[in-house]
Amino acid sequence: MKHTLAVLVENKSGVLFRVASLFSRRGYNIDSLAVGVTEDPKISRMTIVVHGDDGVLEQVTKQLNKLVDVIKVSDIGADGAVERELALIKVAADVSTRSEIIQIADIFRARIVDVAPKSMTVEVTGDEAKIEAIEKLLRQFGIKEMVRTGKIALVRGPNKV
Amino acid sequence: MKHTLAVLVENKSGVLFRVASLFSRRGYNIDSLAVGVTEDPKISRMTIVVHGDDGVLEQVTKQLNKLVDVIKVSDIGADGAVERELALIKVAADVSTRSEIIQIADIFRARIVDVAPKSMTVEVTGDEAKIEAIEKLLRQFGIKEMVRTGKIALVRGPNKV
Repeated sequence: MKHTLAVLVENKSGVLFRVASLFSRRGYNIDSLAVGVTEDPKISRMTIVVHGDDGVLEQVTKQLNKLVDVIKVSDIGADGAVERELALIKVAADVSTRSEIIQIADIFRARIVDVAPKSMTVEVTGDEAKIEAIEKLLRQFGIKEMVRTGKIALVRGPNKV
Repeated sequence: MKHTLAVLVENKSGVLFRVASLFSRRGYNIDSLAVGVTEDPKISRMTIVVHGDDGVLEQVTKQLNKLVDVIKVSDIGADGAVERELALIKVAADVSTRSEIIQIADIFRARIVDVAPKSMTVEVTGDEAKIEAIEKLLRQFGIKEMVRTGKIALVRGPNKV
């Protein structure tokens, strides 16, 4: 099953390494990972998406909690959470296809962030399904390059994780 | 100096651990990291923002290139690159402050993605400076929780990294 973990850690050198090593030792593959600072610059928040055996994940979570630099680990379910991801997609484009690509971008509330004679770059935000839908539509023009941030999530309502 | 590295890797268990360990061994702190799949599901792309000694970074880059699972490492300068980050910010809000928060969100082309009686969640995309500007403005209402993806980047124009 897929899980989204929010891991609050001290913003220090080596923390990422220690967290990654726990998953690696168990052979747990990380689907996506996003790490950035929070409202407190001393604290970073990792959003880790994993899939695999629930029992093993429980063990990994327990071990994460034992790390000195880990402040909190929360499993954020898809229910009751806002989940978002950002992607930049560079598409082959020329005068004959440009307007069609702009149209697709508009439908997905995506933004054109770069245009060159033979390419366009689109910025799109949404859940995984939305990113994959626009990627699929743009594939017909030829995707030259694509980068995704990995998912971030906050629980809905006023509570913190 | 700040550097943004685009690292193309095989989408396998343990790769993140091996990459993170290289930075950790050198005491190199990673400012932000975003990992997601690319247009080829067998390949993941890591965007790593680091700051520190250029000579050490050169050594880390050389060692990264030696890892079997690493396909390519590129240093993407800020010039000629589209750089974006995504943040979700949960702000304390009630009837008296809601419209002011909506106004700020509009100015930053941010989107309201959740509303509760005592809170609102804002989704914003942009470069680091833009994210920090809206964060600063929203701080007066009380930021309850914030999560950022870390930066992703593509070079402008038709070329790949």
